[in-house]
Amino acid sequence: MPAELTLTIEGTSSVAAPGTTGTEAFDGRRNVVAMRVNGELVDLAHALRDGDVVEPVTIESADGLGILRHSAAHVVAQALQSIIPDAKLGIGPPIEDGFYYDFAVPEALTPDDLKKIEKKAKEIVKRGQKFVRREVTDDEARAELADEPFKLELIADKGGASDDDGSSVEVGSGGLTMYDNVDPKSGETVWKDLCRGPHLPSTKLIGNGFAVTRSSAAYWRGDQANESLQRVYGTAWPTKDELVAYRERLAEAERRDHRKLGAELDLFSFPDELGSGLPVFHPNGGIVRTEMEDYSRRRHIEAGYSFVNTPHITKKQLFETSKHLEWYADGMFPPMHVDEEKNADGSIKKPGQDYYLKPMNCPMHNLIYRARGRSYRELPLRLFEFGSVYRYEKSGVVHGLTRARGFTQDDAHIYTTREGMRDELARLLTFVLDLLRDYGIDDFYLELSTRDPEKSVGDDETWEAATRTLEEVAVESGLELVPDPGGAAFYGPKISVQAKDAIGRTWQLSTIQLDFFEPELFELDYTASDGSHQRPVMIHRALFGSIERFFAVLLEHYAGAFPVWLAPVQVVGVPVAGDFAPYLHDVAAKLRARGVRVEVDDSDDRMQKKIRTHTKRKIPYLLIAGGEDQDAGAVSFRYRDGHQDNGIPVDEAVDRIVAAIDAKEQV
Amino acid sequence: MPAELTLTIEGTSSVAAPGTTGTEAFDGRRNVVAMRVNGELVDLAHALRDGDVVEPVTIESADGLGILRHSAAHVVAQALQSIIPDAKLGIGPPIEDGFYYDFAVPEALTPDDLKKIEKKAKEIVKRGQKFVRREVTDDEARAELADEPFKLELIADKGGASDDDGSSVEVGSGGLTMYDNVDPKSGETVWKDLCRGPHLPSTKLIGNGFAVTRSSAAYWRGDQANESLQRVYGTAWPTKDELVAYRERLAEAERRDHRKLGAELDLFSFPDELGSGLPVFHPNGGIVRTEMEDYSRRRHIEAGYSFVNTPHITKKQLFETSKHLEWYADGMFPPMHVDEEKNADGSIKKPGQDYYLKPMNCPMHNLIYRARGRSYRELPLRLFEFGSVYRYEKSGVVHGLTRARGFTQDDAHIYTTREGMRDELARLLTFVLDLLRDYGIDDFYLELSTRDPEKSVGDDETWEAATRTLEEVAVESGLELVPDPGGAAFYGPKISVQAKDAIGRTWQLSTIQLDFFEPELFELDYTASDGSHQRPVMIHRALFGSIERFFAVLLEHYAGAFPVWLAPVQVVGVPVAGDFAPYLHDVAAKLRARGVRVEVDDSDDRMQKKIRTHTKRKIPYLLIAGGEDQDAGAVSFRYRDGHQDNGIPVDEAVDRIVAAIDAKEQV
Repeated sequence: MPAELTLTIEGTSSVAAPGTTGTEAFDGRRNVVAMRVNGELVDLAHALRDGDVVEPVTIESADGLGILRHSAAHVVAQALQSIIPDAKLGIGPPIEDGFYYDFAVPEALTPDDLKKIEKKAKEIVKRGQKFVRREVTDDEARAELADEPFKLELIADKGGASDDDGSSVEVGSGGLTMYDNVDPKSGETVWKDLCRGPHLPSTKLIGNGFAVTRSSAAYWRGDQANESLQRVYGTAWPTKDELVAYRERLAEAERRDHRKLGAELDLFSFPDELGSGLPVFHPNGGIVRTEMEDYSRRRHIEAGYSFVNTPHITKKQLFETSKHLEWYADGMFPPMHVDEEKNADGSIKKPGQDYYLKPMNCPMHNLIYRARGRSYRELPLRLFEFGSVYRYEKSGVVHGLTRARGFTQDDAHIYTTREGMRDELARLLTFVLDLLRDYGIDDFYLELSTRDPEKSVGDDETWEAATRTLEEVAVESGLELVPDPGGAAFYGPKISVQAKDAIGRTWQLSTIQLDFFEPELFELDYTASDGSHQRPVMIHRALFGSIERFFAVLLEHYAGAFPVWLAPVQVVGVPVAGDFAPYLHDVAAKLRARGVRVEVDDSDDRMQKKIRTHTKRKIPYLLIAGGEDQDAGAVSFRYRDGHQDNGIPVDEAVDRIVAAIDAKEQV
Repeated sequence: MPAELTLTIEGTSSVAAPGTTGTEAFDGRRNVVAMRVNGELVDLAHALRDGDVVEPVTIESADGLGILRHSAAHVVAQALQSIIPDAKLGIGPPIEDGFYYDFAVPEALTPDDLKKIEKKAKEIVKRGQKFVRREVTDDEARAELADEPFKLELIADKGGASDDDGSSVEVGSGGLTMYDNVDPKSGETVWKDLCRGPHLPSTKLIGNGFAVTRSSAAYWRGDQANESLQRVYGTAWPTKDELVAYRERLAEAERRDHRKLGAELDLFSFPDELGSGLPVFHPNGGIVRTEMEDYSRRRHIEAGYSFVNTPHITKKQLFETSKHLEWYADGMFPPMHVDEEKNADGSIKKPGQDYYLKPMNCPMHNLIYRARGRSYRELPLRLFEFGSVYRYEKSGVVHGLTRARGFTQDDAHIYTTREGMRDELARLLTFVLDLLRDYGIDDFYLELSTRDPEKSVGDDETWEAATRTLEEVAVESGLELVPDPGGAAFYGPKISVQAKDAIGRTWQLSTIQLDFFEPELFELDYTASDGSHQRPVMIHRALFGSIERFFAVLLEHYAGAFPVWLAPVQVVGVPVAGDFAPYLHDVAAKLRARGVRVEVDDSDDRMQKKIRTHTKRKIPYLLIAGGEDQDAGAVSFRYRDGHQDNGIPVDEAVDRIVAAIDAKEQV
């Protein structure tokens, strides 16, 4: 053991006494809550060794927030067990913006329970309990946690634990560790949990940016065959202000929730009779959807795409050829078995066929490609379909229009030569981003999803070539490029366009995937200029992703106040009094003749009430008219923000509205 | 027994000797081949009784053609058994334009067999065998037909025989009858068949308008569980000229066969990988389809329809409510069972759900109707969807686009008050016929399908009221109205528009169905002007019927030469020599800027070959240009019929084409 330690702290070499921990190394820096030693995340109390390279982990960093939330989860568990002593501990990992902890409890938790738990947790935070790490043998762990059956199960499964269920937070692949919560006054361990850590030095650091938020049911280890537990969710932030800001973001997101707006604006619904994740679009939603599709179609035709049409079901054979049944069966609905012929004795005369709902359109587009011979002169061949697909999502993960079981992809498959591939990709990326901008989405970055060797077809070399090409094109776009290792589909790497909405949330929208394998599987070819037969390369591309999901994104982005070109009703005429309704009907007729969607509110309501009603409906323009307007052949223009332009001549008003629609103005 | 008979023949009273038969009554009228006595169809040899009312049946009449063809079927059976003595007789009814006879034979029949059979049949015709009717007991029939196992089965089933399998032609519900074929010279019975008749007096009357056409496999009584037989088809007409005309019609229909044209013009295909009755539309077909849909949509929006969108699958519950599972299950694909949750021991924790593909859109539109309260002010509410449905058709009856398993209905459901129903129906019928005319279909009659009490919901009174209303509206249209008793769907009576195509064939296109029952089943209501809650009436309406089927009808109607507005490629530029291609590319750019679908053929082919190629593609306009045209800033206009207008200035040519497209000209 050397007399002193040589450490590299934040890139600077320094000398310290033996036994020095992070607590001393970062003494006085209150916001440092853990550290990375030689890249590994550890507690501040960890004793440093000679030659260690040490970086601080601040509470504001991604690592720091995770630790804060994980420690908060322990505090909530301690609080719950002090209130419900029979509660058995499940697991309690940090998640995005917060944490949860699962418990087996005799009865489902009530909002009142949650309040008590939060109150108790806050006492524990104030108390300033220390988190103390301790290595234990399996036997010791079993003895100490003899009353915690789920923990015993985790100990038994150690090593086999998967990341998916969060249980790796409890037990790592090495030896077991226990975290004690030690009372600072008595020095006694008041609670403990099997845990890999690291944790904050003290519960005090959790501070007052912390809250218990809700509870739900959850299966032990996410398996429906297991016991149903209660999951307590909470959130934790470095400061109270950040907690408040988070709650405001949540409230804003809730105000914009597309499911809520969809009902309020009579756009779509999810009838119980149909089942989970299967929306119906009402007339108002139908208008928005049609406008979205029509403009997209027009632009695609101009850009040289051909529209095709394929069925929603197919015999099994197709998805065997495409390998979807090998790689994607979990995401598919089960088959329908038909065409079986039986003998009189019930024995099978002719075996039937399994038919599947399509989860993707690509294999069907391949059949169109190979319906006849193709020449290099025809490439790139760009097939486009508004293709409805069905994917079996577990009912628990289905969410409004953003994660549905049935949705319509704006799905293109481009067949190109290898030589033409790069140009086509660059052209495609520009096209995609331009079109998204027309829909009011203009804050992007790109993500490059690369191969998961466990879940993919094909050889390394082809994957690498494809990935390199995509990367080059992405870099050339000048947009930020974020790697997503292992995130590719089974057939090829992907660029995805990540777009920020009006409240700063990121949505994955367009995807561009390169695929050398499906053309092999379907034996696609074309005659090259030298007469030889060549394999085309295939580009899979969805621009909106799904129409339903993009609809939801736009709805939330605009908080329901669609730009005028997309608005279901673009103009409502509001007479100052009933006498002026006929005048406004004349104005409406002029607008209608120019293709504007217009209504006149000639109901018995008073003007102010009408203005409130149609403002709530987020109508882009109200045209108000009274006697003066009528005499002058004018109207008053009222915008959604309450701003009003009075005395606009009718023809000018009509022109102004038509121009705003044509320009796709963001009003 | 009176000394003489008093008969009414063709409305005229006359007196005849006892024992007089039709042979004497219609002596000398060669074209009379049977008669109706008191309404019943019988042989001419039938002895008339006092007071009988008698009408002749001529060979040209529908009854006469049926008898001709039925007799021809016997002759073919006799011929076949004389060539293949082991052949066992199935059944042999007349069908549209001909007849068939089924046989159990050791091996499938070859074209050569059919030739031999036809030759032999012609000998029998010439021979002039008499058809002689004879009543037999069951025991006598069994003894005489001891070698004919299928006939024995028919005798055993007598009375239980259904019309569906044609076996009622053999055995009626009364006593059994046998028809002997008696050689005119020897007076011997050379062949016999169990048959209800009637038949021609002699095989000679079959004449030379007769042919054996083809054979196919068919299950005994149409049941897959039974033995597979060989079905021999034939046709028979009163004269050779009529046979020739029939064959020409067939050949013309074959030239126009949409499946053949679909492949030739690269419009669509039926890939084996997908399965029976599931088409894919190629880029060319996609253009025609999009044009068809777009124009229809524009017209529907102008007429006050709202476009909605619903999924292709649903939980079972919906089709239980709508009673489709009770009345229509045979036409549906089997369910997909999902969402079942199991315990660790494999027992069911939570039962799953059956999901079905939708065979119809109406139940989903009902859910949109009742997504919120409705007021009388909103009615009629006209919901429209291009809704793809899937119906399980047996693979044997699937036929191209006209009878597919998956197709897209242009499906509207109109919800109206009882008071408004009649006006809405009248307006609807006018709208439907007008729109069909825009697609070039203008020769109509109407069919009124009424209730099948065995296959319908609801009460007599409601059905009668609905039927009366439809009938009134149909009569007012001034079109011919043909009754179709029992042809209605289970929920209400129907008017269907029957349209004749360019070669005189009739297609059922638009349907308008009135429905008082689904609104009950779905408990639909609206608030009337007096504040009371009322049930709306529902009108189901498909205009094209299915887009795919209408596509096929148009394709056959036009023999592939679509009017310019629907043509996938509207104009092809053909340079007289390669030098003039750039000039035509400039012309093409002008057309493209006006939205015209145009190509320039700058390949190395010679001009004449290009003209042949694009004429075969049925391109509406070829624009040809050489040096003179280029110097004059003109083009030569070549139409599909070969007619050519030379020296048309480019701007005029462009205007002429755009005008023809806008006017939906039938060129």
